[in-house]
Amino acid sequence: MSDALAPGSTIGILGGGQLGRMLALAAAPLGFKVHIYEPSADCPAAQVADRCTTAPYDDDAALDAFAASVNVVTYEFENVPTAALDRIEAVVPIRPNRRSLGISQDRLDEKTFLQGIGLKTAPFANVEDQAELDAAISQIGTPSILKTRRMGYDGKGQARLRSADDRPEVTAPSVLEGFVDFSAEISVIAARALDGAITCYDPGENVHRDGILATTTVPASLPRSLQTDAVLLAGRILNELDYVGVMGIELFVTSGGLIVNEIAPRVHNSGHWTQNGCTIDQFEQHIRAVAGWPLGDGQRHSDVVMENLIGDEVDQWQALSADSNAALHLYGKAQSRPGRKMGHVNRVSPRASKG
Amino acid sequence: MSDALAPGSTIGILGGGQLGRMLALAAAPLGFKVHIYEPSADCPAAQVADRCTTAPYDDDAALDAFAASVNVVTYEFENVPTAALDRIEAVVPIRPNRRSLGISQDRLDEKTFLQGIGLKTAPFANVEDQAELDAAISQIGTPSILKTRRMGYDGKGQARLRSADDRPEVTAPSVLEGFVDFSAEISVIAARALDGAITCYDPGENVHRDGILATTTVPASLPRSLQTDAVLLAGRILNELDYVGVMGIELFVTSGGLIVNEIAPRVHNSGHWTQNGCTIDQFEQHIRAVAGWPLGDGQRHSDVVMENLIGDEVDQWQALSADSNAALHLYGKAQSRPGRKMGHVNRVSPRASKG
Repeated sequence: MSDALAPGSTIGILGGGQLGRMLALAAAPLGFKVHIYEPSADCPAAQVADRCTTAPYDDDAALDAFAASVNVVTYEFENVPTAALDRIEAVVPIRPNRRSLGISQDRLDEKTFLQGIGLKTAPFANVEDQAELDAAISQIGTPSILKTRRMGYDGKGQARLRSADDRPEVTAPSVLEGFVDFSAEISVIAARALDGAITCYDPGENVHRDGILATTTVPASLPRSLQTDAVLLAGRILNELDYVGVMGIELFVTSGGLIVNEIAPRVHNSGHWTQNGCTIDQFEQHIRAVAGWPLGDGQRHSDVVMENLIGDEVDQWQALSADSNAALHLYGKAQSRPGRKMGHVNRVSPRASKG
Repeated sequence: MSDALAPGSTIGILGGGQLGRMLALAAAPLGFKVHIYEPSADCPAAQVADRCTTAPYDDDAALDAFAASVNVVTYEFENVPTAALDRIEAVVPIRPNRRSLGISQDRLDEKTFLQGIGLKTAPFANVEDQAELDAAISQIGTPSILKTRRMGYDGKGQARLRSADDRPEVTAPSVLEGFVDFSAEISVIAARALDGAITCYDPGENVHRDGILATTTVPASLPRSLQTDAVLLAGRILNELDYVGVMGIELFVTSGGLIVNEIAPRVHNSGHWTQNGCTIDQFEQHIRAVAGWPLGDGQRHSDVVMENLIGDEVDQWQALSADSNAALHLYGKAQSRPGRKMGHVNRVSPRASKG
C-alpha cells in the first residue's frame, strides 16, 4: 500500500482524445490532478484536465517538463513513439509497462505472445512483401484478412481476401490472418493492480459496423463455462505481462471455444458500458491501478447497451436527451466527420438476474 | 425543446468549490464546457473546468467578460452578491431564478414563503434587536434557536436558547425558531425542467454532527405515506417558484407530519448519494435543467450510505480506497481544516427492495 499515490498527486496521460478525457473525469473524484500531453490543439481531454501540454512527441523539452510535472504516466492509445516513452520513463514510471505496450503495438508480436502462453488466436503468417503474401495465402487460405502489423485501429490498414485471386498490395509489414468462424465477439475488460490483484468486468457482446464498434451489450449471451474461460484467459494475459492497469481483450466465440482477437493495453471502447453499469467504472479502475491503489468493485448493478455515436449520429443528441434511461457521454469534439467517434450512449435497465 | 443548449455550449458557474467541481464533472459528458467564476485562487472546480475566472464579485469587467463567454449561468451557493447577479443577468439567463435565490438567502423570507403556500415550518419570529428577542422568546418559548437571517450555513450564525434566561446578543437581523420535536431529518432532492417537468430522488435520511451533515442514508426509514407527502411538497415549492434546476429540501419528520427546515436552490450535500445510486445524478440533473434539457431518470439502482469526510477524516483515504464497495469523491482541496468538507464516500450495496 505504500506505493499508493496520495490525493493531490498528478497523473500524466499521453493522448487527449475521448479516452484521455474520460480518464481525467474519473481521476478527479480520487483527488488526482491530470496533465494531458497531446500534439493536437483543442483536444477533448483538455476541457476537463488541470493542465494540458500541446506539443509533438519529438519535442524533448516539452516531454521533459511533462515528465517532471507528474507522478506517474499512462496513455490512452498504443501508438506513442518509442523515443518519447524512453525519455519519459527515465524520469517517471509508465503504466501499463513498456512490454505490454510493445506487444500490443504489433499484431505479429501480439499473436506470437498469445500463442506462446497457450491461448488460441486466428491462424496467422508474417507478410513483408508480395512473395510472402503468396506463401501466406498458400498456408492460411482464404477468406482471410491482411492487416498491417502496426498502427491499425477501427478497421484501418486492413484488406479482405475473399478468394486466392485477391492480391492486395503489401505496403507495410503485415500479417495475414485466417478467417475465424465465430458466433459472437465479446470483450473482457480486466484490471490488474500493482500488487497483482486482478478483477474482471462481466463480458460484453460487441457488434461492429464498417469495422468500427457499434454496440456492446451486457450481459453477453454466453454460456457460463465460456464466461469462466474468458476471465481465466484474461488473468493469464495480465499476469504474464506483469500488467498494471485496465486491458481490453477482444475474443471470438467459436464452436471450439474462445479465440483471442486482439488486446489493447488501455481502457477500451467496449468497456464504456461500465460507466453506468458498475460503481467503479473502467476509467476509475485504470486510474486506481496506475496510481498504485487497490482496485474497486467491478460488480455490475445494471444491464446496459452501449451504442457508439459515430460521425453525424451525434446530431441525435436532442432525441437521446429525451430518453430518460439513456446516459449520454459526449466527447466535446467540435467537428463531426464520417467514422469519427463523437460520443456514446449507455441505455440502462435494471439488472435482469444475478447471473 | 428549442430552448435546449446544444453540446459545445458553455455553462457558467458562480462558485468554484466542491459543488461547482462536481457540476463541472457532470456537465462534460453532456458535451458542455464549463466556465467557473470564483474569487479564491486554486479553487477545486478549476482543476476540471475548461475555464476559470479568478476575480471578486465586484469586478465589473470580469463579470461582464464572464457573462459574455457563457450561454447560461448557475451557482453553487446562495450568497452571491445581488449587484453581481444583476450585472450578469443583463446579459445571460441565471437559473435557478432570482426569486428562488432571494427567498433562500433569507430565513425570514423563506419561512414566510413556505407558510404562504401552505407548508409547515418551525414556529418563528423576526428578531432585529434585543427587545424583539424578548418578545420573540415570549411568543416562541424555549428551547429555541436564534439564527441570522442571511449567510448562515453548516450551523454558523446560530445560537441555542435552552431556557428563557438565555439572551444571546443579536448581532444581525435574525429569526428565532421554535424547537421542533422530530424523529428524523430527511432530504428530498427535486429537479424541475424548463418545461415544468418535475422529478424527485428517493428521500435520504440525514444525520448531523456539530451542525454539519455527517451521513445520508438511502432509502430513508420512512412510511410510504410520508414519502408521498415529501414528493408532493417538493413539487409545490418548485412549481410555486417556477424553479429550474435541482433544489435540496430538508424536512423534519414529526408526529404531526413533515415540517420544512430549509431549502437550498442548488445541488445539495444530502444528494451526493445519487452519484452512485442513480444513472443520472443530481449534478447532471441540475445541468440538464439549467441547459433546458429534459430531465433524466431519477430512479435508484442501489442502496447508498453517504458519509462526509470532514477535516482530517480525509486522511483515511487509503483505508477507504481498500473498501471495494466504497466510491470515494475527493474535492481536490490542498489543505484540510477542522470543519472543512474535504470529500465524501458513498458506500454502495445492491438495492434491497423495489420499495
